[in-house]
Parts: sequence; C-alpha cells; structure tokens
Amino acid sequence: MSSVRISATRLHKTITELSKIGRQPEGGITRLTFSKADVAARTYVSNLIRQAGMSVKVDEFGNIIGRTLGTSKKRTIACGSHIDTVPNGGKLDGAYGVLSAIEAIRSIHQHGLAPNAAFQVIVFTEEEGARFGAFIGSRGFTGLLTKSAAYTLQDKNGITFEQAMRKANIKPNSTCRDYTNIESYVELHIEQGPILEREHASIGVVESIVGLGELEISVTGEAGHAGTTPMQLRRDALAGAARIVLGVGEIAREIDRAVVATVGSVAVFPGASNVIPGHAVVTVDFRDTSLHGIRLLEKKIVTFAKLLGDQYGLHVTVRKKNLTKPTKMSKSVTRIIEASSRSLGVSYRRMPSGAGHDCQNIANLTEAGMIFVPSHKGMSHVPYEYTRPKQLEAGANTLMQTLLRLAD
Amino acid sequence: MSSVRISATRLHKTITELSKIGRQPEGGITRLTFSKADVAARTYVSNLIRQAGMSVKVDEFGNIIGRTLGTSKKRTIACGSHIDTVPNGGKLDGAYGVLSAIEAIRSIHQHGLAPNAAFQVIVFTEEEGARFGAFIGSRGFTGLLTKSAAYTLQDKNGITFEQAMRKANIKPNSTCRDYTNIESYVELHIEQGPILEREHASIGVVESIVGLGELEISVTGEAGHAGTTPMQLRRDALAGAARIVLGVGEIAREIDRAVVATVGSVAVFPGASNVIPGHAVVTVDFRDTSLHGIRLLEKKIVTFAKLLGDQYGLHVTVRKKNLTKPTKMSKSVTRIIEASSRSLGVSYRRMPSGAGHDCQNIANLTEAGMIFVPSHKGMSHVPYEYTRPKQLEAGANTLMQTLLRLAD
Repeated sequence: MSSVRISATRLHKTITELSKIGRQPEGGITRLTFSKADVAARTYVSNLIRQAGMSVKVDEFGNIIGRTLGTSKKRTIACGSHIDTVPNGGKLDGAYGVLSAIEAIRSIHQHGLAPNAAFQVIVFTEEEGARFGAFIGSRGFTGLLTKSAAYTLQDKNGITFEQAMRKANIKPNSTCRDYTNIESYVELHIEQGPILEREHASIGVVESIVGLGELEISVTGEAGHAGTTPMQLRRDALAGAARIVLGVGEIAREIDRAVVATVGSVAVFPGASNVIPGHAVVTVDFRDTSLHGIRLLEKKIVTFAKLLGDQYGLHVTVRKKNLTKPTKMSKSVTRIIEASSRSLGVSYRRMPSGAGHDCQNIANLTEAGMIFVPSHKGMSHVPYEYTRPKQLEAGANTLMQTLLRLAD
Repeated sequence: MSSVRISATRLHKTITELSKIGRQPEGGITRLTFSKADVAARTYVSNLIRQAGMSVKVDEFGNIIGRTLGTSKKRTIACGSHIDTVPNGGKLDGAYGVLSAIEAIRSIHQHGLAPNAAFQVIVFTEEEGARFGAFIGSRGFTGLLTKSAAYTLQDKNGITFEQAMRKANIKPNSTCRDYTNIESYVELHIEQGPILEREHASIGVVESIVGLGELEISVTGEAGHAGTTPMQLRRDALAGAARIVLGVGEIAREIDRAVVATVGSVAVFPGASNVIPGHAVVTVDFRDTSLHGIRLLEKKIVTFAKLLGDQYGLHVTVRKKNLTKPTKMSKSVTRIIEASSRSLGVSYRRMPSGAGHDCQNIANLTEAGMIFVPSHKGMSHVPYEYTRPKQLEAGANTLMQTLLRLAD
C-alpha cells in the first residue's frame, strides 16, 4: 500500500486549472464566497470529485461533500479544505488541500485498493472570512454556528449569506448532519509561514493550532495645531499608539520564541499632516499554542497600554474583540501522519500552526490532524504564494498514505 | 485718537451672524472656497464692508477688496484675513480678523476721524487650502501665484478653481494689481496655540511666522501572516514607522523649546489586523522660525530614518514635499502694535506664529505685522474654538489703534 502514489501530472494540472478561475489582472486570484468565480470553482471541483468516483452533495452551509460510491462501510475517514480565497490571493491556500484530497482518493480508486472505510472530501464554504466571516462552512458543519445565524450574516454591502447563496444558484440537497459521523479528519495545507523552508523539512506535522486573541486599543489625547502647540504641551495620541506598536512586539519576544503579537493596523484621527493626532486606534492580534499563554499575553499587553496611558496623560481603553482557544491535534492522527511521511522517505517535523484552519473546528467533532508543506519565504494570501512541485507531491502523497492508514 | 473704541456689540453680533453661515449639524462651520456657504458669507461680509463706508471690488483670485471711499490719499494701509474654513471648523479662525478689520474702519469713520491714508480690507480667498490648496488668494494677490496657475488648480472632484468660481457666480470686477500699492499690512488672528492663555497675555505681537518643512517617509519591510511568521523573522514596516513617530518628537524636543515636529498621519499596508504590515507611510511636519533651523531639523529627521532602516532591515525612502521659508514681520509694524497695546492698557508679549497666515505672503509685498489674541486651550480648526469676549474686543481695539498709528 505504501508504494501507491498520486498522479503528479494530474495534481499539477488541476492546481493550474483551478488557479485560472478568479484570476485577477494584478496576478492573484479572487474567489469570494458565492461570487461568480467561486461558483465556477465549485463546478470545477464538483466535476473532479465525480471523476474521482464520488457522489457530490451540497449541505445547508454550501459545503460540498464528496463521498466514495458503493461502499456500505460504516466507518468514514474525511479530508478537505476550502476553495474560497482572500482578495488577490494565491493558488495554493485551501485549493491545494482540496485538490490533493480528490487526487488521493482518485488514485486510491484507480489502484484498485479497497480500504475498510468510506472517504469523504469536504470543501468548506467561506474559510477565509473575506465576505461573511471566517470558517462559516466548518463552524456550521460542526454545529458551532446555526443555520439561522449563518443565513443572516451580511457582507459589507448588506447582502445576507442566504441571499448570496440563492443568487449564486447554490441549492443545498443534503444536510451536513448526514455527514458528520466521521472517525478521523485530516487536512493538507501550505504552511503560510517560513519554518519548514528554513529548516529544510518537507512535511510539517501539526501538533496544535494556535489560539488567537484580538484587542482593539484606543488612545485619546488632544488634537492640536502642528505649528502652534509646543512639544511639551502635547498629548499626542499617535505617539502613544507608536509606543503600543513597539511594546506589543517586545512583550511577545520576551515571553517565548513561539509566541507572536502583531499590530496590523493603525487608524489616526483626524489624520491630517498638520494636526497633532487626538485619537488613534490600533488592532492587536496575539497567538500562542496554550490558552494560558494567550491570557498571559493579553494581560501583559493590557497592563502595558494602561500604564503607558497614565505615564503620558493619554486615555487608553481596551476592547477585547475575540478569543479563539488553541486546538490540540489528535495524537493518533499525528503519529499516523509521521508514519506516512517516514514510509515515503520525506523529512518532517512537528510544529504548531500559527494560522487558523477549518481543521480546528472539525477537531470539536472528531480526532483531527493537519499536514503542512513549505511556503516559499513564508508567503501566503499573496499572488506569489509558492511551494515547489516536488514538495506539493510529497504533501499529497503523505495525505494519501495517511488516509489509507486511517482507513486501515 | 487712543480713546476711540470699536463697537463691542457690533463686533460680537457680526461674529455670531457670520458663524451661522455654513453651520453643520455636528456643531462646526464648513465654508469651503466657492461653496454655497462661502458665497453667502461673501455676500454678508461685502454688505458689512459697504456699511462701514467702503467700496467693494472682487479681483481675479476672488479676493474681496474693500477700500475707504472718497479719499484721494496716496498712502494705503491694509488689513484683512479670510472667511473660508476647514471642514467643521470654528467661528473665529479668519472670520475674526476680517470682521474686526471692518469694524475698526467702521468705527474710525463713525468717530469722524480723518486719517492721512486710505484703508483697505482684504478678504483673501482659500487661505485654509481645504479645497484647492493653501493661500491661493494671498499668493495670487502678491504675484507668488499666477492667474493661469490658480485657475487650473483642481479640487478632489477634478473641478478647477475657475469652474468653481464661475459656478459660484463670482465675477471679478477688478484686478489685484490696482490694490497692491500698500504701505503697511496688519492682520489680526486667533493664536491657535496655548501660549497666550498660559502666560496670561491678552495680545500676541508676532515677530515671525515659522517656516515649515514637509516630508513623506515610506518604510517598506515584508508583509506576512500574523500567525505564522516568528517574531525574529519579521520585517515589520509599522514597527519602523512607530520608531520614526517617536524619533521625530525626540529630535524636536532636543533642539529647542520653540521647535515643533509632528507625525499627523500614518498609512499602513495592507492594514489588516492579521497581516504584518509590509509598508507604511508617515507624514512629517516640522517648523522653526529660522531657515537654518528647518534645514537642521530636516537633516536630523532624514538621517534618523535612514539609520533606522539600516538597523532594522527596512527600506526607507524620504520624499521632500515642501519647504516654506520663515517670514520676519516688519520691526516698525511690530513696534506700532506694541505701542497700540500699551495705549489700551492690555498685556502683550512677542511671539512667533507657529501657523501660516496670509500675512506671510503679503510680507513679500510690503511691511507687515500680525496681532494674536488667546485661543482657549490652544484649540483651533474645531467647532469649540473659543476666545473670551473681552479678549476679542482687546484684539479689535489693538487693530484699530494700529491702523490709526500706521495711517498717521
């Protein structure tokens, strides 16, 4: 069984073909959920699933579920990812996992193998959250989000999830509850970070998906004329925000090498070159593999910001926006991924996932694991997202071996 | 002559009446050049000028020029300011100087005084620069800006100055060249800073208007996923920008108490909470009363930014956007303003103007001086711009005494 390989030609061909759907003049790919490009990609992928010898259903969240035909097997091994993208994103994030899963099952069928379990490929709706919010398909699939809550979510134009699904002519013909009796789930994805490439490892065996805290810190000082207000009388909100930007980085670096904290945006008011900023708002994104670590980070960041406000005469308020708990991957799935890598002779290392994935939601339902392949320079969500062809093949073969071992 | 006073009642009444034109639901005043509110304000002020016993002409830049009637005097003493505002601004910036000038001349006429010079009140177009760019009226008046250059300036909707003036039905009926033979110019304005209030002085005698340098500093690092990029591998452009924000302030504070430097805006790209910023652009506004000081500031800021780029592996580029030279006020006009304050028994102090004013352009044409009154908490360009009534009266009386002494 370990001598079976996926068709590299077919894998690369399908990656290239899918990458043409939603291609932008700027070079990247835009497939927002239920857009024309998303619908075309759904059609493309549904046909591939059929060609791989599976039935295709669409559940109430728009998730596409492929299932091996003609099996009376009670056990189900699932795999999947997503095909929606961020605006002007790359061709691998999500799509690579979906196409590899289809290819793996197609190859298993073509080689005449008869596993002891049925396979399910799930293409989750709206993983990226670029239109309605992150992980809608996988949160719906696992019961973390109700149908009614999902259907009333609105995009920035006020169009609801339900309206957009209907306009895209996507007609659910099943319910996800018929497909949630899964024994194991495995997801293949690009790393979206630089670790595997730096350490010359072909496969990342994900041990945990980091949890994520999100804060919004508002700094209020006093706006003033840039020419007439002496330096010593200023209460410059942007200077406060700048100290928070630097402080957040220092706090993360002091705690541990694996911890990250990022200020990704700053809004400055009034934001004119000749006015001392009276108000500034920064977002803080911080992540760790333990909930304890996330709470520690949050506490340190909040304390730092408040003290800074006192020190510089600024009014600092902190809004806790979100806290996503870390998710541990299944130890047994993790071991099977390692065994699969070893059997293929490819190098691997255990690592956390710093990004969120549909897998973290499926982990609430059943044992779950993730396989990473290297991302060149750690780049993702950009048009030039890249993984070498041999690395893509190694990942897909590791996924196939893992599916076979899980089904065994 | 020094016992003559302006009509406080009339001064406050006209300030209140003009403040109703362009009043916003948010509480402030918006009179963008050639807008409906600006046109209504022009009509209001033109009528006041006529009531004060002056003729009214409009030059090719839209400047309103009032001139005392029936004088065959060869000498002309001018005063003025502007009535355009920033969006949602206050009732005093500009308007106070114009209304006080009209009131001063009206009172001089009413008291039957017969000065040895004609008076001119000039209401300069587009001082704030909120629509077409700063100081268009006074730069045009003094020959620093040609008519053809002014007429082709565009607002953010692509409407030219000429089109906007025509649409507002403002028809020039004179040329500014007929009014530039001015012996002395004096402008009354709110300080827009906190110095007079802090030092309990009623009148600011402006010795110089600071010069202004403007830089745009771009910092380019590498965008990356906020979850998957370890802290030690980041090249965070916003962290670089934050160091520039703080460094700019430190440089100004180290040089001298009178020097100011401000980062008023930061643009962050891509600007998403979960992406490490790859690019950030900050504006720097720095001012001093000497050209040497401005060049020193510029050199120190540029050197700091470049070194910072080298230190943190960021690509830093600096664009020099603008450099406005400082303007010295006339020593003789300054002495006359002081003598006028003393004759009224009001406290005064010499000071620089940290803000730019039409006066700095008129100083290219003739001897010029400026009178400041306190701004409560230094606030300006905001709806709650405030100066106490007695202080407004003291300023207008100082202007009247200065006009009389200059005409003597």
